[in-house]
Amino acid sequence: MVDTTQANDVTSPTTKELGDVRRQIERDEGHNLIASDRVEGTNVYRPNGEKIGRIRRFMVGKRSGQVEYAVMSFGGFLGMGQELRPVPWEALDYDVNKGGYIVSAEEETLLNSPYIREEKEPAWDRAYGMHVFGYWGVPY
Amino acid sequence: MVDTTQANDVTSPTTKELGDVRRQIERDEGHNLIASDRVEGTNVYRPNGEKIGRIRRFMVGKRSGQVEYAVMSFGGFLGMGQELRPVPWEALDYDVNKGGYIVSAEEETLLNSPYIREEKEPAWDRAYGMHVFGYWGVPY
Repeated sequence: MVDTTQANDVTSPTTKELGDVRRQIERDEGHNLIASDRVEGTNVYRPNGEKIGRIRRFMVGKRSGQVEYAVMSFGGFLGMGQELRPVPWEALDYDVNKGGYIVSAEEETLLNSPYIREEKEPAWDRAYGMHVFGYWGVPY
Repeated sequence: MVDTTQANDVTSPTTKELGDVRRQIERDEGHNLIASDRVEGTNVYRPNGEKIGRIRRFMVGKRSGQVEYAVMSFGGFLGMGQELRPVPWEALDYDVNKGGYIVSAEEETLLNSPYIREEKEPAWDRAYGMHVFGYWGVPY
């Protein structure tokens, strides 16, 4: 998880640097890969252990192979509807013990986070990335 | 796609550098993300357009969000069986026109590539990564 208080700090590591470091750590630790069809459906929790939703699918660069967004449903949590919400992968932290992902965000942040209108697939372009990553305080 | 003739060249870009460059290109080009549940089932072709198989799933770093392997089935092609074969993501090249991935490899390379025994899930650890990436001539 990226510390959002650092998001505007020019000395913060970039997303790619964080990704590289994490990949290296994973490789050093061994078995830390997950099958794509297992990520789909994985639960998402808050740091207090409360289940807030699950990952419906994720969006990956066709060529880079880098996951950019988890597309989550928060159905029921805080009265949130069934709409899907894109969350930057870097805003999720995998918790080995829970076997799921943790999102550290205030309720307000979750409630107001960008969501996908059923009738309108996002462009998934740079402008959209800036919007979503910016909202979550994650460098794009 | 990585030029495998360069795989042992110490001046070659690393996997992460290639990934970073590709991600930047993708972002510059806009809409180049694909949904995880659409990658599953995507066809894989040879450069001559021949369909050789499809992607069954892929293996992604739980924390890095970096796809390391496509897990492919080559069922029927060259008499290959239904077993699944892990192919480094970097050995696949996305072809927008075909809407699928291209693997540039000789038949011999495809035939002899590492496969997953049904009764034995790979460890997906560093040693396995070195083995598979090494076979495909892709820096790990």
